[in-house]
Amino acid sequence: MKTFFKVTCMDQVLEYAYDFPLLGTEEVPLPDTLGRVLASDIVSEADLPDFTRAIMDGYAVRAASTFGASEGNPTYLTVKGSVAMGESPAFSIGPGEAARISTGGMVPDGADSVVMIEHTEAIDDTTIEIYRSVAPGQNVVEEGEDFRKSDVLLSAGQKIRPQETGLLAAFGIKTAVVYKKPVIGIISTGDEVIPIEKPPGPGQIRDINTYTLSGMIEEAGGIPLIFGIVQDNYDMLFEKCSQALAQSDMVLISGGSSVGTRDFTTEVLSNMPDSKILVHGISISPGKPTILAKVQNKAFWGLPGHVVSAMIVFSMVVRPFADHVSGLKYKREYRLPALLSRNVSSAQGRVDYVRVRLTEKNGELWAEPVLGKSGLINTMIKADGLIEIGINAEGLDKDSAVSVITLN
Amino acid sequence: MKTFFKVTCMDQVLEYAYDFPLLGTEEVPLPDTLGRVLASDIVSEADLPDFTRAIMDGYAVRAASTFGASEGNPTYLTVKGSVAMGESPAFSIGPGEAARISTGGMVPDGADSVVMIEHTEAIDDTTIEIYRSVAPGQNVVEEGEDFRKSDVLLSAGQKIRPQETGLLAAFGIKTAVVYKKPVIGIISTGDEVIPIEKPPGPGQIRDINTYTLSGMIEEAGGIPLIFGIVQDNYDMLFEKCSQALAQSDMVLISGGSSVGTRDFTTEVLSNMPDSKILVHGISISPGKPTILAKVQNKAFWGLPGHVVSAMIVFSMVVRPFADHVSGLKYKREYRLPALLSRNVSSAQGRVDYVRVRLTEKNGELWAEPVLGKSGLINTMIKADGLIEIGINAEGLDKDSAVSVITLN
Repeated sequence: MKTFFKVTCMDQVLEYAYDFPLLGTEEVPLPDTLGRVLASDIVSEADLPDFTRAIMDGYAVRAASTFGASEGNPTYLTVKGSVAMGESPAFSIGPGEAARISTGGMVPDGADSVVMIEHTEAIDDTTIEIYRSVAPGQNVVEEGEDFRKSDVLLSAGQKIRPQETGLLAAFGIKTAVVYKKPVIGIISTGDEVIPIEKPPGPGQIRDINTYTLSGMIEEAGGIPLIFGIVQDNYDMLFEKCSQALAQSDMVLISGGSSVGTRDFTTEVLSNMPDSKILVHGISISPGKPTILAKVQNKAFWGLPGHVVSAMIVFSMVVRPFADHVSGLKYKREYRLPALLSRNVSSAQGRVDYVRVRLTEKNGELWAEPVLGKSGLINTMIKADGLIEIGINAEGLDKDSAVSVITLN
Repeated sequence: MKTFFKVTCMDQVLEYAYDFPLLGTEEVPLPDTLGRVLASDIVSEADLPDFTRAIMDGYAVRAASTFGASEGNPTYLTVKGSVAMGESPAFSIGPGEAARISTGGMVPDGADSVVMIEHTEAIDDTTIEIYRSVAPGQNVVEEGEDFRKSDVLLSAGQKIRPQETGLLAAFGIKTAVVYKKPVIGIISTGDEVIPIEKPPGPGQIRDINTYTLSGMIEEAGGIPLIFGIVQDNYDMLFEKCSQALAQSDMVLISGGSSVGTRDFTTEVLSNMPDSKILVHGISISPGKPTILAKVQNKAFWGLPGHVVSAMIVFSMVVRPFADHVSGLKYKREYRLPALLSRNVSSAQGRVDYVRVRLTEKNGELWAEPVLGKSGLINTMIKADGLIEIGINAEGLDKDSAVSVITLN
């Protein structure tokens, strides 16, 4: 018997991410910032809003003028005029005075609150009755209440969601500097693998992994660059890897799961200029035969050939590297609690990822293991997520509480 | 006092989605199917794989030839040859025979399993010792084990993830028919609203909602179409709505939260050709002043002007309509269980959505309400999600179990 891998544990593999430098940055127009990672902090240059705004329709008043007002004992105020939208009122409000105002209107000087129109009655053109008192600041957004000048609005390493684009818009920020998207090359290997356009001959199989990985790269915010299929040939793989090195920020070599293919993938990676093999096997299942090399500061991955293994290694291992070089510091990733529907066995000394389907029963979420070999894509089609079984566990019992990594 | 809205409850509003027809379909190339919704079932035209494949490196054998083999009592087999990758072996395997095979290789006729190379020792060129028995089907994927001919691979209404693109690739499916992406027009209204390029004068505010909504439309798989800002003017709004009707599948009118603006938005929508106002106010908070009209089979929304309200109405109300017209039938949407960090009050008779920040304490996930008016965008910047307080609840107590709708 022969030892094929000196496997590295997950934690140590993930530590290697920090050996790779962050990508460069670029300035993009505001609408293109969605989903991108900010490269520097953004500081506000003004108060937001920069005037006190009404957030209800009604009358701008001094709160003190309304104290004690009730249905049974209304207070009477003098209407000084109307606030036109988008304009600064030409008058101010004193005690016992009010001004008609709509939502979004600028609260006149002297006023500090708005009485909702529902709580008033116009007596004549210049007099209103009000039935409820308001407190200072009520029904208005005060100057600087949303953000103050010099506040850090957003931080480097933060991913831009729709609300963050709105915030940039609020401050008139038309472009933002973000990290470049990682260009991730995909090389498919294997004499048995053919392009999807071709009908497979006996013993041949279409190239599934290129499409699956390409989709996962897009979902990770990267740009997939497809290099096609390389025969199991050292020189051809070396040549493709050199091309990919020149054009990509990271490279995935996928398909060769046989020891032979793996051996010459390792050989090619070792012989690339400025190359170092960091990982040759990871203590996870599926996904053990994974190779990681650092080639001129770029991560080159030899992924397992089985599609399920390749997908799981991408999600759990490659993706954190892609996130790291993309500058992403703050991740909103939550695992979903569920109950395990049956016993699952596992081996100690490795982390197992089990595909699960999620079902709701009696208001509880159940994770039902999807059984099947890692060569079967149907198991990933059926799966809604993955559960992780720790390195020291020998399995999990039925009804155990588990945390599901969702596959949406 | 005057009643401003005859509010409709959420369930009834969501029911209206089914009054709108599904969008048309289009055929797109395989790499572009990611994230799209399938318009018809896809049925397999062949077995997958269409031959029995090795999933380990080793020797293809008849399982029966290995029964009883152990370290102490190895079995000897005659090696008939090697299986070349991507080719049909020219020989078959009989009892007591074996063939060298790599992962992905075609198992020769007569063999039904593979002995892993780790459990063998080559004695000479034509003889091996094996130390472990295998069962029929072990270490191989049998013909049709992944999918059988005529299986429904994927169903209409299903969203394509990376693994589904891989499955299509496996069957050589180069294009798929999917529902069109909904083109969703955005019209911003309000005399106080200015384009983000302009410096705001007194009482003016930049157009936040167009950007926020545009991002949310993209995340929903739609195509945002920006119509810019319209002054509070009936004719101009009517004209913009007519343009938007011609160019969009759904329209969002955003910004006018004052009663006056709302009134003429309603008037414009009522006067559009083939128009019917379905909803004039929804019993949710924030988001009550929402209008829904059906104009020539298209949904026209009058959204509340406050950005937080507009975002929540988009997530909880508009999005299900967009999903429906996009043909999406199977949704993987899970709410995240958490514990509420403080008491939250609410009013009976409406559904409340409370912004929350998620924090982990002692291994438990806590939802901490983000306080602040719905006119403040900072509350959505701080929020990781929303919790829903039901129509019959008067609030939730600290430490209550809540389900968080994440905002990623």
